[in-house]
Amino acid sequence: MLNWDDPVAKPMQKPEELEPIIAEQLLNQPAAIEPGEDITLSPTPATSQKPVDPDDKRVINGHTDINQLAPFKYPWAWNYFLNANKNHWTPLDINMAQDVTDYRYKLTLEEKHVYENVLSYLTTSDILAMRNIGLAVMEKMSAPELQIYQARQVYEESLHTWTYQHCIETIGLDQSEIYNLYRVVPEIHQKISVANRRLDSIMRSDIDLTDPDELHNFVMAYIFFAAIFEGCWFYNGFSPIFALQRRGLMKGTAEQLQYIMRDEVMHASFGIRVVKQIIYEEQLKIDMNQIRQMWEEAHEAEKAYTNYILKDPILGYSAEVHMGQFQYIANRRAGQLGLSEIPFPGAEEATLPWLDEQANLRKEKNFFETRVTEYQTGGALSWD
Amino acid sequence: MLNWDDPVAKPMQKPEELEPIIAEQLLNQPAAIEPGEDITLSPTPATSQKPVDPDDKRVINGHTDINQLAPFKYPWAWNYFLNANKNHWTPLDINMAQDVTDYRYKLTLEEKHVYENVLSYLTTSDILAMRNIGLAVMEKMSAPELQIYQARQVYEESLHTWTYQHCIETIGLDQSEIYNLYRVVPEIHQKISVANRRLDSIMRSDIDLTDPDELHNFVMAYIFFAAIFEGCWFYNGFSPIFALQRRGLMKGTAEQLQYIMRDEVMHASFGIRVVKQIIYEEQLKIDMNQIRQMWEEAHEAEKAYTNYILKDPILGYSAEVHMGQFQYIANRRAGQLGLSEIPFPGAEEATLPWLDEQANLRKEKNFFETRVTEYQTGGALSWD
Repeated sequence: MLNWDDPVAKPMQKPEELEPIIAEQLLNQPAAIEPGEDITLSPTPATSQKPVDPDDKRVINGHTDINQLAPFKYPWAWNYFLNANKNHWTPLDINMAQDVTDYRYKLTLEEKHVYENVLSYLTTSDILAMRNIGLAVMEKMSAPELQIYQARQVYEESLHTWTYQHCIETIGLDQSEIYNLYRVVPEIHQKISVANRRLDSIMRSDIDLTDPDELHNFVMAYIFFAAIFEGCWFYNGFSPIFALQRRGLMKGTAEQLQYIMRDEVMHASFGIRVVKQIIYEEQLKIDMNQIRQMWEEAHEAEKAYTNYILKDPILGYSAEVHMGQFQYIANRRAGQLGLSEIPFPGAEEATLPWLDEQANLRKEKNFFETRVTEYQTGGALSWD
Repeated sequence: MLNWDDPVAKPMQKPEELEPIIAEQLLNQPAAIEPGEDITLSPTPATSQKPVDPDDKRVINGHTDINQLAPFKYPWAWNYFLNANKNHWTPLDINMAQDVTDYRYKLTLEEKHVYENVLSYLTTSDILAMRNIGLAVMEKMSAPELQIYQARQVYEESLHTWTYQHCIETIGLDQSEIYNLYRVVPEIHQKISVANRRLDSIMRSDIDLTDPDELHNFVMAYIFFAAIFEGCWFYNGFSPIFALQRRGLMKGTAEQLQYIMRDEVMHASFGIRVVKQIIYEEQLKIDMNQIRQMWEEAHEAEKAYTNYILKDPILGYSAEVHMGQFQYIANRRAGQLGLSEIPFPGAEEATLPWLDEQANLRKEKNFFETRVTEYQTGGALSWD
């Protein structure tokens, strides 16, 4: 039912909800209304005492009562929430004992450099992701079923932060040093700065999303966080550790990261879905020049970061394969957003063909067997 | 180790953290600095690239790097987060089958009136609680270890909303009607309005908490949500359903509410702790007249609500015992806040002596036995 590989996997969406806009509409034309379809663009004021009419709900700029969860207009959002809860895990569920030995006695200096800097990037990133969704995005949603998944999302980011802290404590790293690395390593700082700039631009609560420029800026920031920050940088950012895992090293950490990756795929998927719904409801034209600049900036920052992390390649992994995979995934995200052009023509094959498999791993084999099956709450999840 | 009954139970706090202020300081005097104690009131700007010094962290108005979780200044906040995760549950864990039959064939009309209106109040309240902590409070915290527990808190409120929705769907109630009740029943609306007014007054992101009036208003709102909204209205608000449970009715719903109550006790406890820390760090004087007005307003709203919910008393429960218990719990919260006077002299005995026992129930007896013990993550929790 759920496909962890593909953030906007078709099986999760009802046919009628799949593509509210087609690519050209997304890019340069006002979103056309499907023949026979009725979209309510003039919100009903919440002054009456009638129950909320779901047709009046909107993703943003809505005026229905935010305190009335149901009836749902966006049942898919509620399903994201239910599914996320079914996949609950904590870092304490995973055995880290071997990682302590691996780190001390088996990792080379180059591998330690990769491990520590990736951890440092991830921990700073996940606090930022938490602040983005919790402090900047959630408040702008005007339908409670969207806020409720985002509440889970905020929590999942905090679970990830706990996970990194758990790794740092277990391995016995200097936590002050790890947390501070992003401020002293320019190549890590650059990625964080790019994200912080987007975050800062949508942090004010007095942003008027009925203003076309403010709306466009908000949607660009949402696209950045869903498709690049979570969809590319995170999705692709665990790979150096997975490369260690494939050689039997740091397997506990890698398993933690697989769970985080699964969450991040859901976040990217949900975000892309919300963005497309906003573009449809608000009849927004996205500026393709800004999209191109966004991809380019993300690419440059990733390249500098990768060259620093992998200044000395490690066995089975290099800066080249990492960047090849980044371009490949970026193209996939562009397609999922419904953009008419892909950012990196030529990067049409995965340089890390095992990465999607990693994301798709049947988790119950190595994780849920330590728990009673009941906890997996029935047959609601299918991993095929 | 944890005491669910008492929000600021001593065993959870290290002795040196227990009472940063004494009652008189809280009320009418500037908080004195303990002899020999160094409190940093001049924040270090985050311009240097040194790791964060935990001594520079502050609850609000701090200037240390929000992206660096550790080292902790408030390890108790981190412990709240870890403990909350250990107590994870979802509404699907609890069998609701008997409730469907109970509702249809066993409840009297008066009991149905209680059940539906209590559910309606709770569901509106929990969305409001989610918005308060997620959209108004969390952003004002300047230490990440506080935000991280609040991220869990936001999620728990959304779990509660799911729980009510699960009850509504299982029993087969009209969800539009239940969610809308708070707008058509003045006695429910009044409580929500009192809370909404506090929330609205702290929702703006441009609030300057270095301004003494703004700071006082923010702290009053935090006191309201922690000590009254969660600490009294929620803590006491489940009791009418527990009264049914004690007669063998609606036991599934009541068990759900016991889990919610356990979360809410943690929220109240954390909030009171944060409030006291702010008062200490900011050397704030609390206006006792405003405190008295707050209690009075909360009491009046609760009284009107209770008279509506229990306009016809049900077997084993009445408006009188409900209000007696409200006053008793309010006095307890005042004590936990360190206030020098209790709001309701004379209400020194519980009118519902079984309520604390309910909060203290050994959950593993009826809940965790449906799961493998491993899930309870070891011996970290003690229920004694």
